[in-house]
Amino acid sequence: MTSGNTARSGRRPGNSGTREAILQAARVRFAEVGFDKASIRSIAIAAGVDPALVHHYFGTKAELLAAALQLPIDPRIVLAQLATVPADNLGEALVRAVVGVWDSPLGVQAIAAFRSVLGTADPALARTFILDIVLKEIQPRVDTPPGTGAKRSVLAASQLAGILVARKIVQIEPIASMPLEELVALVGPTLQRYFTGDLPDQG
Amino acid sequence: MTSGNTARSGRRPGNSGTREAILQAARVRFAEVGFDKASIRSIAIAAGVDPALVHHYFGTKAELLAAALQLPIDPRIVLAQLATVPADNLGEALVRAVVGVWDSPLGVQAIAAFRSVLGTADPALARTFILDIVLKEIQPRVDTPPGTGAKRSVLAASQLAGILVARKIVQIEPIASMPLEELVALVGPTLQRYFTGDLPDQG
Repeated sequence: MTSGNTARSGRRPGNSGTREAILQAARVRFAEVGFDKASIRSIAIAAGVDPALVHHYFGTKAELLAAALQLPIDPRIVLAQLATVPADNLGEALVRAVVGVWDSPLGVQAIAAFRSVLGTADPALARTFILDIVLKEIQPRVDTPPGTGAKRSVLAASQLAGILVARKIVQIEPIASMPLEELVALVGPTLQRYFTGDLPDQG
Repeated sequence: MTSGNTARSGRRPGNSGTREAILQAARVRFAEVGFDKASIRSIAIAAGVDPALVHHYFGTKAELLAAALQLPIDPRIVLAQLATVPADNLGEALVRAVVGVWDSPLGVQAIAAFRSVLGTADPALARTFILDIVLKEIQPRVDTPPGTGAKRSVLAASQLAGILVARKIVQIEPIASMPLEELVALVGPTLQRYFTGDLPDQG
């Protein structure tokens, strides 16, 4: 992070330019065609490097997206904790897991990434991140009756985003310094209703 | 908005500097001491102008805060529509009124103001706006049992903020292009539960 620290990672000077070129190409491709259609190969070509170098620097495509968004943690690691949670308990568990990360030392960078997304004129990168990474695991688990999963999961994401705004960005009390478990008890049922509750028919 | 247009409003050249000085002083005072304690007189002194000039340019203190935040409409006009709505129907009515403004031609500027607030390092101005203007009318109406009004109204505001992020900033489907009345039916019950539902005891 600080200048003069390149020796620590053992990287040659100049590699940071290659890394940044890959990240920039990734941001453009992910925003243009979405996560699924943006191949590592096409990103490597746009950056003028060998695809193997992209894997070498960033690992999987999902890890590349997390790096492009400057996320401190691959969100699938957070969501993986929820794999064994029954759908009927998903609301509280998701609030606990996600707000838990924001409240942790990793949260500072997660908040910075969120603010940068909100300030960007083109929301396509954020959209593909939310749809193809964050909601991809959740959506099929809450798709009852079939076809409602997208609506249910985006509504839940909207409430989580609003909690992030209130607790971490605008820092408004009593949400800003509320104990995590009280927040889980208050907001968990909202997510649970979105996930498994009766929803009104489409207007 | 465009240069060379000062003649249209009949203002003398140079007045825009005075207006901007007042707005800048207002932003600092509101952020420092909050809406209630920031007097028009103290803002005028900080801007080096007569208090009468502040009233002349901006009207009431609340209108000055709206101008400082570059809001397209005084939010109290929106909230005034809700004065006669029973507390038991406040959830759907608030979603309809607020999202209705964001969906209107005024919404573009409201969204810009919201994005600018989210990108500002110091959230104090946004905080005094939300606490002293937006929630001031709602909070006493949902303060049952006494003392819960702040928590209830901030939770509702968090869900509205999240809908704004999903519908207007990240523009994620199906929320982005969902008909307003479907959104009211889906999200209204969330606000209603926050306003009048049983809340868990503090942890």
